[in-house]
Amino acid sequence: MTSKPLPLCRIQITDAFWKREQELIRSAVLPYQWEALNDRVEGAAPSWWMHNMRAAARAVAAKKAGGQYIPRQKPRGMVIEGPDPAQADPDLFYGWVFQDSDGYKWIEAAAYQLALAPDDALQSQVQQAIDAIGAAQEADSYLNTFYTLTGIENRFTNLKDHHELYCFGHLVEAAVAWKEATGRQDLLDIARRFAACIGRRFGPGKERACPGHEIAEMALMRLYEATGEPEWRTLANFFLDVRGTAPSTFALEENARRRKDGLPELPVTADRYAYYQAHMPVRQMTEATGHAVRQMYLCSGMADAARLNNDPEMREACLRLWHSAVDEKMYVTGGVGGTHVGEAFSRPYDLPGDTAYSETCAAIGLVFFARRMLQMAPDSRYTDAMERALYNTVLAGMALDGKSFFYVNPLEVDPAACHSDDRLRHVQPQRQKWFGCACCPPNISRLLSSLGAYAFTRSDGTLFVHLYVSSRFETELNGRRLQLRLQADLMRDGKITLSVMEGAAEGAIAFRIPGWADGMTVHAPRKEQRREKGYLYLTGAWTQGEKITLDFAMPVRVLTGNPLIRETAGQICYARGPLIYCAEEADNGKLLHLLRAIPQADAEVETQAIGPVSLPVLRVAAKRILAKDAPLYADWKAPETADVTLTLIPYFAWANRGEGEMRVWMHC
Amino acid sequence: MTSKPLPLCRIQITDAFWKREQELIRSAVLPYQWEALNDRVEGAAPSWWMHNMRAAARAVAAKKAGGQYIPRQKPRGMVIEGPDPAQADPDLFYGWVFQDSDGYKWIEAAAYQLALAPDDALQSQVQQAIDAIGAAQEADSYLNTFYTLTGIENRFTNLKDHHELYCFGHLVEAAVAWKEATGRQDLLDIARRFAACIGRRFGPGKERACPGHEIAEMALMRLYEATGEPEWRTLANFFLDVRGTAPSTFALEENARRRKDGLPELPVTADRYAYYQAHMPVRQMTEATGHAVRQMYLCSGMADAARLNNDPEMREACLRLWHSAVDEKMYVTGGVGGTHVGEAFSRPYDLPGDTAYSETCAAIGLVFFARRMLQMAPDSRYTDAMERALYNTVLAGMALDGKSFFYVNPLEVDPAACHSDDRLRHVQPQRQKWFGCACCPPNISRLLSSLGAYAFTRSDGTLFVHLYVSSRFETELNGRRLQLRLQADLMRDGKITLSVMEGAAEGAIAFRIPGWADGMTVHAPRKEQRREKGYLYLTGAWTQGEKITLDFAMPVRVLTGNPLIRETAGQICYARGPLIYCAEEADNGKLLHLLRAIPQADAEVETQAIGPVSLPVLRVAAKRILAKDAPLYADWKAPETADVTLTLIPYFAWANRGEGEMRVWMHC
Repeated sequence: MTSKPLPLCRIQITDAFWKREQELIRSAVLPYQWEALNDRVEGAAPSWWMHNMRAAARAVAAKKAGGQYIPRQKPRGMVIEGPDPAQADPDLFYGWVFQDSDGYKWIEAAAYQLALAPDDALQSQVQQAIDAIGAAQEADSYLNTFYTLTGIENRFTNLKDHHELYCFGHLVEAAVAWKEATGRQDLLDIARRFAACIGRRFGPGKERACPGHEIAEMALMRLYEATGEPEWRTLANFFLDVRGTAPSTFALEENARRRKDGLPELPVTADRYAYYQAHMPVRQMTEATGHAVRQMYLCSGMADAARLNNDPEMREACLRLWHSAVDEKMYVTGGVGGTHVGEAFSRPYDLPGDTAYSETCAAIGLVFFARRMLQMAPDSRYTDAMERALYNTVLAGMALDGKSFFYVNPLEVDPAACHSDDRLRHVQPQRQKWFGCACCPPNISRLLSSLGAYAFTRSDGTLFVHLYVSSRFETELNGRRLQLRLQADLMRDGKITLSVMEGAAEGAIAFRIPGWADGMTVHAPRKEQRREKGYLYLTGAWTQGEKITLDFAMPVRVLTGNPLIRETAGQICYARGPLIYCAEEADNGKLLHLLRAIPQADAEVETQAIGPVSLPVLRVAAKRILAKDAPLYADWKAPETADVTLTLIPYFAWANRGEGEMRVWMHC
Repeated sequence: MTSKPLPLCRIQITDAFWKREQELIRSAVLPYQWEALNDRVEGAAPSWWMHNMRAAARAVAAKKAGGQYIPRQKPRGMVIEGPDPAQADPDLFYGWVFQDSDGYKWIEAAAYQLALAPDDALQSQVQQAIDAIGAAQEADSYLNTFYTLTGIENRFTNLKDHHELYCFGHLVEAAVAWKEATGRQDLLDIARRFAACIGRRFGPGKERACPGHEIAEMALMRLYEATGEPEWRTLANFFLDVRGTAPSTFALEENARRRKDGLPELPVTADRYAYYQAHMPVRQMTEATGHAVRQMYLCSGMADAARLNNDPEMREACLRLWHSAVDEKMYVTGGVGGTHVGEAFSRPYDLPGDTAYSETCAAIGLVFFARRMLQMAPDSRYTDAMERALYNTVLAGMALDGKSFFYVNPLEVDPAACHSDDRLRHVQPQRQKWFGCACCPPNISRLLSSLGAYAFTRSDGTLFVHLYVSSRFETELNGRRLQLRLQADLMRDGKITLSVMEGAAEGAIAFRIPGWADGMTVHAPRKEQRREKGYLYLTGAWTQGEKITLDFAMPVRVLTGNPLIRETAGQICYARGPLIYCAEEADNGKLLHLLRAIPQADAEVETQAIGPVSLPVLRVAAKRILAKDAPLYADWKAPETADVTLTLIPYFAWANRGEGEMRVWMHC
């Protein structure tokens, strides 16, 4: 039974926790990011986004006016660091090849916010951005400031590394979001024209190639769903199925470049392409590999394809990749990507805490993938993973004040080690403001601003409640409108109330039974109850004024890792509801590895202020090994310990009180 | 009370274990290495040693004949990989800049073997090598094939990275060993002439510079001790004290090169030079840092200087560095170098097992340093560390058949991880034959062949027995000769017998009381007994036919790491006598991290054949966690386990029975 999200403009998030997060995006993050896109943030790396758009617009205008544009840069002449923006050459491209995507992601997030509530200032900024994009589009509808400024004749010659189709995908996502939020067609037209330009070059019977960084696949599927135009699904299907097939477009492109440079050709080996998930046809894949964000975006596109093409073979591939990513390679925090080498999936069960990569964007990608699996066939195992990624790694990506961001989300941090150890160069003990490679902050913005699209989906006869986020929303059920109110506060407990505010309909409302719930009580008069794949289906007539309640028991849980995870051997961690907990130095002192948890001890839940918010923390009895002056190695004896009370805070809230140690897994 | 080693020609090792090791070096390793030096080993990286010597000799001969030699290579034109030796250009330099040292180390080892027993074939190979070296020496006595072949005018301009003085140091070590073994002066004259050439350029009032890779310091001190010529001590002192002082010679050289290449100069920052131990004056150093082999070689030179100059300030620096290296940064196996980044010391207590570097050569360097600290002032803490390094990491460096070698000595290995994980690229699960960078194999050869020099030292009135290695040896005691026999077999037990075979003398024989001994019984009639700093001094008259016995109790010990070592938290390891034990897959199956040791369990000692030798193994009760089909994360419950009997083998013997998992530290 496939389902689709409700339109965002029909959902108003009222949740005590999530409303604050969404407002933080609107009031703090988006304005900051707009300044960043315009290179006006003191002390942050310039984005160069507006700069590059304007430079490209001048080049395009010159050509449209019949003049010739001779780029002053070569494709390899990228200036990633760049000068002070005030000193920048107005006609040069600066930053990474994928810099265009910065602004597209921001527009997408802004559009979701505008769907939630009007905001003239924000709307006018988006319009400025769209005007800049439109002006940078070539006469033949190609749109990429890097190639416009470094030699348009080289476009589409390095799909492996140059992110053209990645930027395109983000443009499409932004355009659809903007259309759905405001009804405005302008950006969608720009995106459709560029899509058509791509479709003239690539596709069945044309050039065989696929993007080095996926997203175009799911973006094209979204464009197809938004417009009903079948050519976009055809192009998405093409990009999916050409991937990892011979002749390798990656190798062809790469070797053509190398021949031009007088370098020997490189052999085609699977491991050279696993990073890009281009080492085998996607339908044959069994293991999540390579760059974790790319893998998750690919899986999202595959899941869209499986659903929209009703393609069981593609669905089987999705199921295998889901199993690999979530059942063998996911951190307890819902993060994926066990190794910083290639920002990638490591082998099964290799989940080190201190050297973790676990990129925020990869957890976001897992949320995308999960929602698409849910759309195909509801099953709470998808929702459990989606919720875990969202409440832990995704949220951890942003400071509680919305002003700084983690790209990498370790499960164990010793700041002294991070500062001195090259093996931990990728691990920051403090969130950073804005990077030159600014993937994660705008990605968080677009996900949190569109949270409603992950909380609820519907099919004709069923409304699915996936995430328990207080909200008022409107849906259709078997053709009849219902105004509903969901009340929940997962930061406090598992009590859920659904009230029908207006309307009447017959059909099912399916509530996810969270994996963390230790039993539930249901009060749903006159509804047929049925449980299937972790969802409780309540079927019957729904009429104004009625109210059903669910109470999911939410005890503190003590978790262990599968014995095959070497890194968690002999350790446990604490969880409650969707939240994974961690110990921080601020509450528990230094040398957290000396703490010894007592799995049998009862934990108390209390509320504690952490930065600008009050959050549920745990207090639980534990021991601390006394590290006296001892030789480096000594005869074993039962260690001397002191009784302590651990304070554990939600993982997502770590590093909001200055720099200090942090640890999720505790020895016991 | 300073002491010095006994001449090797006065010591005959008869020990069941060590005699086999020494004979392995003579019969298998040195012949193999000679073939390697001549690039005649199928499947091994060429050494290029003889090739480079011959090429340099032709250049030198051309110049001596009044011709001009115009090199066809630049110093940056190094061909590290090189072609098949049969296709090599006879006039080019191949390999690393430090390739000359390969042969010098081999000569040194061969000389020690010749001091133990004559061997005409070996002696004639050494003579060939020396002839090649002599022919490659420039008219002004400079000797380095790299600069002879790439432009002699560039010599001494990149002491930081180009290993000229490192090669020189190994030449001196070889020359002194050869002189002491055979009485032949030829190589010593070559080395002294080169030393004089260096002394004309560097020294007090001349150019201020120091070697980027230390060894010249201790080599020059050895040359001074061997010849009595004071200029070598002066030069060694200069190299020690100029190190880390301003103006930084490293920076001057480097920036001169950069200016020549039109590159901007680099700032002088301490962390850029800590790798080379050139970040501060050696007398101020408090922490072992940077490349571990270099640090240990530097410490060895500093300890020589402290003793030979009677310099208390230098001795204090040695004591601080000893404390840092051994009491805060040493693996339980006696290895040093916690990080592969720079093959270096990590921060205190950072001793990861799986990503360890723990280079064989660094453990050898620790043995050098320890012996020199012992020479300055006997204290069993030096000997305990020396013995631990020797019996564990140094021995692990060579296969039991002498045919392959470890450079890196991890304490935990999963071969599947090593094969697939870039973070473990430096960790080999199997020993390798011969590397292009062949530091460790010849270093093992020279140490094991000169074992007697580490087992015994003497001062006028005291003979020190540091290591319990069965042997017959001759020493002087207060001017009288004694022929002694030491009987021991540490692979079996801690029983020691010392017999006076011939002669009579009065004085002390000091026996180290090993740190691993759990009490001892002494049978020493008519000797005054005194214990000081871990040595038992037996003083009195020693006469032919008498025999004293010591019995050091050698129980199986269960060791823990200091609580500050994060990586050993909740784990123990097993030791007996000088041996650290490990579990291997061959005995205990896969997934060794599932084993749970029981610290209170009694271990049995048995003998088991491992490859070509019989070794003491331990059998001890333990548990194995049952890894059933389980979710990735689950609610904690006491794990299901099965009773197992662990078989633990000496760490040094791991990886002699095919590829498999290995683990020193066991969860408990």
